[in-house]
Amino acid sequence: MSRIIAHYLIETADDPARAAAIMAGEQSLGTFVKLAAETPERVAKYGARVEQVEVVEEVAEPSLPGARQPQEQSNKPYQRAEVTVSFPLDTIGDSLVGLWTAVAGNLFELAPFSGLKLTGLELPTSFTNAHPGPQFGIPGTRNLADVQTHPLIGTIIKPSVGLSPTETAELVSTLCTAGLDFIKDDELQIHSPHSSFEERVQAVMEVVNRHADATGKKVMVAFNLSGDIDAMRRRHDVVLEHGGTCVMVNMLAVGLAGVQALRKHSQLPIHGHRAGWGMLDRHPRLGMSYPAFSTFFRLAGADHLHVNGLRNKFCESDTSVIRSARACLTPIHTSQPVMPVFSSGQWAGQAPDTYEALGSSDLIYLAGGGIMGHPDGPAAGVRSLIEAWEAALEDITLEDYATTHPALAAALTKFGTAQT
Amino acid sequence: MSRIIAHYLIETADDPARAAAIMAGEQSLGTFVKLAAETPERVAKYGARVEQVEVVEEVAEPSLPGARQPQEQSNKPYQRAEVTVSFPLDTIGDSLVGLWTAVAGNLFELAPFSGLKLTGLELPTSFTNAHPGPQFGIPGTRNLADVQTHPLIGTIIKPSVGLSPTETAELVSTLCTAGLDFIKDDELQIHSPHSSFEERVQAVMEVVNRHADATGKKVMVAFNLSGDIDAMRRRHDVVLEHGGTCVMVNMLAVGLAGVQALRKHSQLPIHGHRAGWGMLDRHPRLGMSYPAFSTFFRLAGADHLHVNGLRNKFCESDTSVIRSARACLTPIHTSQPVMPVFSSGQWAGQAPDTYEALGSSDLIYLAGGGIMGHPDGPAAGVRSLIEAWEAALEDITLEDYATTHPALAAALTKFGTAQT
Repeated sequence: MSRIIAHYLIETADDPARAAAIMAGEQSLGTFVKLAAETPERVAKYGARVEQVEVVEEVAEPSLPGARQPQEQSNKPYQRAEVTVSFPLDTIGDSLVGLWTAVAGNLFELAPFSGLKLTGLELPTSFTNAHPGPQFGIPGTRNLADVQTHPLIGTIIKPSVGLSPTETAELVSTLCTAGLDFIKDDELQIHSPHSSFEERVQAVMEVVNRHADATGKKVMVAFNLSGDIDAMRRRHDVVLEHGGTCVMVNMLAVGLAGVQALRKHSQLPIHGHRAGWGMLDRHPRLGMSYPAFSTFFRLAGADHLHVNGLRNKFCESDTSVIRSARACLTPIHTSQPVMPVFSSGQWAGQAPDTYEALGSSDLIYLAGGGIMGHPDGPAAGVRSLIEAWEAALEDITLEDYATTHPALAAALTKFGTAQT
Repeated sequence: MSRIIAHYLIETADDPARAAAIMAGEQSLGTFVKLAAETPERVAKYGARVEQVEVVEEVAEPSLPGARQPQEQSNKPYQRAEVTVSFPLDTIGDSLVGLWTAVAGNLFELAPFSGLKLTGLELPTSFTNAHPGPQFGIPGTRNLADVQTHPLIGTIIKPSVGLSPTETAELVSTLCTAGLDFIKDDELQIHSPHSSFEERVQAVMEVVNRHADATGKKVMVAFNLSGDIDAMRRRHDVVLEHGGTCVMVNMLAVGLAGVQALRKHSQLPIHGHRAGWGMLDRHPRLGMSYPAFSTFFRLAGADHLHVNGLRNKFCESDTSVIRSARACLTPIHTSQPVMPVFSSGQWAGQAPDTYEALGSSDLIYLAGGGIMGHPDGPAAGVRSLIEAWEAALEDITLEDYATTHPALAAALTKFGTAQT
């Protein structure tokens, strides 16, 4: 395969094949200056090509405003179609930024479309081999965190009420003692007047290192270093110096070139937060699906990628969550899988369904209330999550497993009725 | 002002004030771990605050799927409201990436919202002063291009059919001779097997420099250097070495940290292309409006920002185009204005309306067919655009001015009837 394959869902009042051809033309040959050199051979070599158009449904009203209806189609409904377009490497080269521009650039504004979403990408090995991909992935993360079977059980330190570095370290101490594998900064907590990044890392790692010395287990803490390139490099080095084992980045806010630069510099796993992704994927017929979005940041070098969780508190459906997580666990040619990160309203209850849907426990499972709100305290909260995953892995129902596992039993009693 | 003000348009089946409060809470204090330290004083200091909620309309159907309706509201319509939220600098610090995460992060996925768009930002001077903003802006660009009154008249070299560097340079030669002020790469043309960036710059600048030696006018060429940080720096230096006067970047594909790094390195004006922006703003009730989007990239350092054009070929309305251009021309405290770049279906015809709507000619006006398709050739095409702007600036109708200006007259005859 020497071309890039992009899958789209389109909606148009025009003939879908014609609309797809307009999109392919706009995103490769362009339209302004027609030249004598525009021979059929050159068009074939440098043009994007519509490979397939399959109409899936018709609707009376457009999903997005602003689309133009061709005269002769003005009484027809809007058609939704799955479209496959191939792009030549001869135009894009092997640049991730170039790829984004070609498959997700101006096309969303094209006049024929009342809906347009990039739903997936298939890339030639010559393209993917030009990018580093995850440096640690699943095995590297499991080794650093010293967790081999169940998911990494983790939590988030919310910025809450202006926690100082010392207060943050005190909370981390409680969480380490509770037996957590993984702790992360909130996406909003980076570096601020009341919590300098450097001081936070120092205070937190003192606690983590002391706990590691005492127990042999070094809890993985993802420090949010998002910022400009120089700040991210400097902060990475601070984490490394203090014996930290993970850095976190807000991928969309920093952008592709930022994540690429971080990956080039990093000696630690990169925890990719997707804050802002809702802008790209909340509408079912606009933007970019998470499997497509995550392809860019996986090739750029993220090791962990947020996917929300089953029965989450946000608007995302379970189907969408599982599709994202499966994409994370699928290699892209020789580029290894990344660890999906489940969060939002997670407790012991979602473990069996998550495992059944994925067939894997290679993930990070973040809970807040499910740990801190456990009636017997945070340690029992963590234990209830591990027990729930043990039950899932051994194909025993939570209820059965709970008869001999009191932490899980207490979690089911407290949280079980609150969930649907 | 010591807080960041963000304006939103929301849609919710919940009480709008309650929904806004949920959003403010989620984007500042967070929700996971409630601490004893969460005193009213700390909440006031570190929490985002809803400043205003004004309901503007009611609708029966939600704009976006997935929103949850509270039980007691289940028979009520969806309300749309303009909401103002203020964020403390104590959480965000002075980071642009942090600002993006706070005002445009997870909130788009929050359960109460069937619509949520960031429509504008007001920033304290202590925040804006921490960022470089445009290095050249309007006066710097005008000086380099040696154009003081009318807009910079420009065109785009579409990647078309795999133009080699030599073929590109031949086209640039024709365009220089035609009298253009400004030429830019297509957003899709960066560096590819058939057109290496370095060879293209060398071939094109040879032509531009020869033309400058002969005429005293150096045409500004915006070379598209979008890519990873190292590639962008290297390519910038190539442009500088060859006497080039502008570099171009695909802002959304590269991302904020990438544009910041480019600005830090650059000795040339940065031409900001917005490819992909449709994902963020095509839906009227999702994402981020261009005035908000452009605030980020202006502070990061772009000198020119694409805004589409009046009566363009895309889906964007004229109202939206003018709002974007006006935002570009408004200073952000001491951060100077940027030059809006008009393109898409532009010819002489839109000059008077553009000038009337903006009250300024401090812009870049890109035309393709309006230049290359002029019946008397590209030089007459360029002349017709300059004449149209002269007429606009002198408040004479195009028809009157055309009686003594044959290039404009020919343009009106050819393109006038094709436009609405």
